[in-house]
Amino acid sequence: MLKLYYAPNTCALATHIALEEAGADYTTVRLNFAANEQRGPEYLAINPKARVPALETDRGVLTETPAMLAFVAQSFPQAVLAPLGDPYAFAQAQAFNSYLCSTVHVAHAHRMRGYRWADDEAAIAAMQRAVPRSVGACFELIEQTMLKGPWVLGDTYSICDPYLFTIAQWLEADGVDPSTIPAVMDHRRRISERAAVRRAVAAELV
Amino acid sequence: MLKLYYAPNTCALATHIALEEAGADYTTVRLNFAANEQRGPEYLAINPKARVPALETDRGVLTETPAMLAFVAQSFPQAVLAPLGDPYAFAQAQAFNSYLCSTVHVAHAHRMRGYRWADDEAAIAAMQRAVPRSVGACFELIEQTMLKGPWVLGDTYSICDPYLFTIAQWLEADGVDPSTIPAVMDHRRRISERAAVRRAVAAELV
Repeated sequence: MLKLYYAPNTCALATHIALEEAGADYTTVRLNFAANEQRGPEYLAINPKARVPALETDRGVLTETPAMLAFVAQSFPQAVLAPLGDPYAFAQAQAFNSYLCSTVHVAHAHRMRGYRWADDEAAIAAMQRAVPRSVGACFELIEQTMLKGPWVLGDTYSICDPYLFTIAQWLEADGVDPSTIPAVMDHRRRISERAAVRRAVAAELV
Repeated sequence: MLKLYYAPNTCALATHIALEEAGADYTTVRLNFAANEQRGPEYLAINPKARVPALETDRGVLTETPAMLAFVAQSFPQAVLAPLGDPYAFAQAQAFNSYLCSTVHVAHAHRMRGYRWADDEAAIAAMQRAVPRSVGACFELIEQTMLKGPWVLGDTYSICDPYLFTIAQWLEADGVDPSTIPAVMDHRRRISERAAVRRAVAAELV
């Protein structure tokens, strides 16, 4: 049985949706970030990085959204959530997810988690001011060069789609003007209508 | 024929080494960062992200080191550079590479590329001062919880090893005390002795 450790409004939603899309048998554990549960000894024994998501499997714990998404796709091949038999197409999916993880999510994180990269208040405030520019540039690049349509990889829905949907939840709060990225906004709206997405989102609300 | 776009002293070295380990038939194109070649129209047509590495294949261009490393492993299965037939073990390899890409490399980038995340000089200087702490914490976590030994994943050398080796090239310049991470340093030394690694490093020197 798979067990997903998550907190609301985090990138864990991407894996949560993928598990729903795959029809996986899984449970969830919600962490209370306000109470700093992710830094408590119980969770550190599961994920020493003190972050979500983490996915407990019968062989051990997996972390890092791109790795977990590919794991879900490979573990439930009947759901066809990635082009598994084609190394080039699979690498394109992975490249997209890696960009979300290492560039887009990182740019976003400078709004709330600047303390990771600087120790003084003024610098952290300066990072917050730059977020609309940096996250906005990421989404423009996605809009113009990556999102093939109707889904990220083209005709076939994949693990890239719930991940983009998840990161795109934050763009208004990051100060990005939605009118500059109509394809991303249309993609977000279409994803929000999927039954698996609605189930995962609803489960994180309660 | 594969063509690797790289610049010296960048994370492109990881893929360069993997191509050597795989016995791949490939060529390289060196970009002059000092002349801002990565932002010129010719390279932007190859990689609109204006970054290295990029890997030109006969089907198109791949980017993002974790994606490229998995592509090399899957394209040259006889080199056994990843646990390809085992989704859980493959996800562990991917999780390690994703951590290097999205957390360790990002922490390091705050020393030289702070302008990505702030617009004023004082904030950029504050980011630089925090690099020994942030990169140091990453390497301590790798030392204590990720590097199984003798190789990253345990007994078998994989695409995780040249990537860790590549990022570990920068740790002294990042202000990390090598004496706090003896296993990482021993790993770096052992990797440096491999013939494929020496060939890739030598090719980037000329």
